[in-house]
Amino acid sequence: QSSVTLWGRLNTTVESQKVGNQDRKSVVENNNSRLGLRGTEDLGGGLKASFNLEHGLNSDTGAASGGSQFWNRQANVELTGSFGTVRLGSWFPDSYFSTVDRTSNHNHDTGSSSDALFSSFAFGFRTNKVGYFSPTVNGFSFNASLHAGEGAAGDARAMDLSANYEVGGLHVAAAYSQADTATKRKNYTFEADYSFGPFLVAGYVQRETASRFKSRNIARVSAMYTMGQSEFHFNIGGTKAGADGTFRTAGASQWTLGYNYNLSKRTKVYGYITDIDQKLPNGAGDFNSLAVGVRHNF
Amino acid sequence: QSSVTLWGRLNTTVESQKVGNQDRKSVVENNNSRLGLRGTEDLGGGLKASFNLEHGLNSDTGAASGGSQFWNRQANVELTGSFGTVRLGSWFPDSYFSTVDRTSNHNHDTGSSSDALFSSFAFGFRTNKVGYFSPTVNGFSFNASLHAGEGAAGDARAMDLSANYEVGGLHVAAAYSQADTATKRKNYTFEADYSFGPFLVAGYVQRETASRFKSRNIARVSAMYTMGQSEFHFNIGGTKAGADGTFRTAGASQWTLGYNYNLSKRTKVYGYITDIDQKLPNGAGDFNSLAVGVRHNF
Amino acid sequence: QSSVTLWGRLNTTVESQKVGNQDRKSVVENNNSRLGLRGTEDLGGGLKASFNLEHGLNSDTGAASGGSQFWNRQANVELTGSFGTVRLGSWFPDSYFSTVDRTSNHNHDTGSSSDALFSSFAFGFRTNKVGYFSPTVNGFSFNASLHAGEGAAGDARAMDLSANYEVGGLHVAAAYSQADTATKRKNYTFEADYSFGPFLVAGYVQRETASRFKSRNIARVSAMYTMGQSEFHFNIGGTKAGADGTFRTAGASQWTLGYNYNLSKRTKVYGYITDIDQKLPNGAGDFNSLAVGVRHNF
Repeated sequence: QSSVTLWGRLNTTVESQKVGNQDRKSVVENNNSRLGLRGTEDLGGGLKASFNLEHGLNSDTGAASGGSQFWNRQANVELTGSFGTVRLGSWFPDSYFSTVDRTSNHNHDTGSSSDALFSSFAFGFRTNKVGYFSPTVNGFSFNASLHAGEGAAGDARAMDLSANYEVGGLHVAAAYSQADTATKRKNYTFEADYSFGPFLVAGYVQRETASRFKSRNIARVSAMYTMGQSEFHFNIGGTKAGADGTFRTAGASQWTLGYNYNLSKRTKVYGYITDIDQKLPNGAGDFNSLAVGVRHNF
Repeated sequence: QSSVTLWGRLNTTVESQKVGNQDRKSVVENNNSRLGLRGTEDLGGGLKASFNLEHGLNSDTGAASGGSQFWNRQANVELTGSFGTVRLGSWFPDSYFSTVDRTSNHNHDTGSSSDALFSSFAFGFRTNKVGYFSPTVNGFSFNASLHAGEGAAGDARAMDLSANYEVGGLHVAAAYSQADTATKRKNYTFEADYSFGPFLVAGYVQRETASRFKSRNIARVSAMYTMGQSEFHFNIGGTKAGADGTFRTAGASQWTLGYNYNLSKRTKVYGYITDIDQKLPNGAGDFNSLAVGVRHNF
Repeated sequence: QSSVTLWGRLNTTVESQKVGNQDRKSVVENNNSRLGLRGTEDLGGGLKASFNLEHGLNSDTGAASGGSQFWNRQANVELTGSFGTVRLGSWFPDSYFSTVDRTSNHNHDTGSSSDALFSSFAFGFRTNKVGYFSPTVNGFSFNASLHAGEGAAGDARAMDLSANYEVGGLHVAAAYSQADTATKRKNYTFEADYSFGPFLVAGYVQRETASRFKSRNIARVSAMYTMGQSEFHFNIGGTKAGADGTFRTAGASQWTLGYNYNLSKRTKVYGYITDIDQKLPNGAGDFNSLAVGVRHNF
C-alpha cells in the first residue's frame, strides 16, 4: 500500500546479578527491545506527513513491556514543513534525548546498566502531547511539547523544552521539564558531548526540584574509545539524593565499564560490569551485574 | 514470504471538550486509529483465500484500544468463489457498514463526533462468527452472519443481516440484527445515500426493541459539499430514548458541523464542532467539543 | 530497512462440541493461529545473526492468546556459525518439536484435537532461556537449553535436551526435560516417524515423573495417507494417569480421524472427529468434537 518501514531491536543479556543483600543470581535480561513502524508521505510543496508507532517488548519473556499500553514507546502523527514539525500523540521526552540519553553510550542507556539516577518524571507525561520541533538553523534547534492532563485524577498539565546546538563534533544542550502535579516537579539539565578522532566524551548536570521537598543534583560523565570494531566504554554518575521519584535522603553512585564488539553496523556482542551503590544501610538499593549480550537491529 | 499488506490510520485531534456540568478541558483524542494486516492468495479456478487482522490503537497514549483483545477490530479468514464469500472469525457487524457508517462522513464515524445514538448492540456479538457475503448481481448484494454463543455465561446466539442495492450514485440498504440474550434485542435499519455532483446526502432510520422494555426510534441525516480539496459537512441525528443500552426515558439529539482539507488522498487536516444534548436535568449526558486534527492513512 | 519477513497462520474451525455431561454446543474455535516476524543478517565469515518474534492470536475473537505476554510463542535472538547456534530469549521446548509435535500431523497439534495427554510442563519454562543448537552431522543433531529461574517465587531452573537422527524418510529422537520446582518434574521421550511413498507413520512413548507423586507413561501413534490433494489421518494415544499437571488417578485415551484437502501449499480445508475419554465417573473430563475448518498460511 505504502512506504511503511518495519524496524526493531532485540537486545538480550545473560547476567550474574546481585541485588541488595540477596544471593547472587543468573538472569536472562531484556535491554529495552522494541519493534517499530514508521512512514512518511510527501504531500508536495515541501510538506510531509509522517507517523511513528513503537512497541517495547521483553526479549527474555516475550511480554509487552507496557502491558496493554502496547505502543508504549511512541504513537504519533506529524506534519513537517519549512516551519518545522508539529506532532500529536505520545513520545519520550525530548529533554531526555537531548541530554541524558547522550551519555550512556555503551548500551544505549538500556537494561541493568541504564542511568538509574537522572530525573525521569517527564516519562510519566509522555502521552496526550502536542509538540513543536524547530528546523535546525546554523546548528541550533529547539523542541517544545505540552502534555494535556485532561482533568484526569492524578494527572496534570506538563511541559518539556530542549535546545540543541551542534557544530563539528560538539553537541551542547539545555533542557527543562515541568509537571504541575500536586507535588510540582521541575528539572533543568545541561549536557555536552564531543567526538574527536577515536574518542567520544559526554556529560550532563541536572537539578531536580519538587515542591514541599528539597532539591537534588545529578551528574554523569562518560568516555568511549573506538579501535576497529571494538569500543571501550566507561561511565560514572552520582547524586546526593537517590533516584528520581524517591528523593531518598541518601545519595547514590553508579559506574559501568563496558566493551562492545561490532560484528556489523546492526549487530554487536558486548559485555559490561555495572555497579550501583546507594548510601543506605545493609546494602539496600545496591546492585551490581556482570553481563554479556547480543544486540541486533533490524 | 507472501503478499501481506500492512496498512493503518492514525487520526488524532486536539479538542476543547465540555462534559456535562464539568469544567471545559483540553484533550488530545484518538479517533479510532488502527493497524491492519491483510492478504489474498489466488487458489486457481476462481477461488481465493484471504485474511484480515485489524488492531485498534489509541493514537494519543499508545494503548491497545481493546486491551488484551488486541485484534479487536477484525480477525478472520475467508474463502471466495463465484458462490460469494464464506468468512470465519470476528469483524464489525455488516448491518453497521451497510447503514449507520455511511452517514457520518466528516470523520469516518470516529472519535468525539461519532454517532452516539444508534443501536450498537451488534458490536458486542462480533466475535465467533460464521458469515456469508453474496456476490453483487445487478447492484444487489446481501450479507448474513451468525454469532455462536458457545454456551458462555451472558453470551447468546446472535445474527446480523443486511441487503444493499447500488445504482449510479444511489445506495440503499436494509439491515436487521438480533441477539438472543436474556433481554432479547432486535433492530431494523433503513438507509439511503445519494451522491450527485459535489454533493453527498445520506440518512438512516432505525428501530430498536428490547424484550421487557419499550422500543425506540433513531434517525440521522448528513450532507457533504466538496469544493477542490475542501469538504463541508453537516450531520444531525436524534432519538426519543437516549443511547443504546441505556434506554433512558429522555431522548437526545446530536449535531456536527465539520470542515476537511485534503492534503492528499491519504492525509487531511480538519476541524469540527459537535454537540450532544440529552434531555436530562443538570446537563447529565451532555457533551460538546471544538476539535482540530490530522488523519493520516498508510 | 532490512530483510524482515512477516508471516503467520490463521486456522479456524466451526465445531459441534460435547464437554463432559453438558449440552452439545456450537463453537467457532481458534487452532493456534499466529503472527511472526523473523530476519537474518549475514555477518560474513560464515556468521549470521537472526531473530524471531511470534505472537499467538485467537482467530475466533481477535484476543492475544498470551494476554500481555504478547510474543508468547517466541522472542529470541541468535548467532549462528560453524559451531552451531546460540540463542537467547524464549521459545517452545525443543524436546516437544523433536517428539510430540511430529505425531499430531492432521492439524499441526492445535485446537480441540491437539495432543491432550503428553507431559507439557516444559512449556511453562520456555522464557529466560539460553540455548545451543548443534550443526547436523551425518544426520545427527542435538539441542540443549537452560531456563533461568531468576530467583522468582514459584520459578526454578529448568533444562531441556533433545537429540535427533534423520536418514531417508526416517526420523528418530530422544528428549529429556527437567524443572527443579518444589515438585521436581522430569520427562523422557522417545519418538520415531517414517515416511514411505504416500504413507507417514509416527509414534512416541513418554515417561513423566514428579517427586512426591507416582510416575506415568504416555504413548501415541499416528498414520497419514496422501492421495493427490487429499490427506487421510488417524491418531490415537493413551495414558494411565490423565493429563499432565493433574496426575489424576484415572487414565485417558484420545483419538482423531481427520481429512485434509489442500487447496494449495498454503491453504487447506479440513474436517475431523476427535474424542477424549477420561476414566472418570459421570463423563468428567470427556470431550468430543466434530469440526470443519480452514487453515491459511501467509
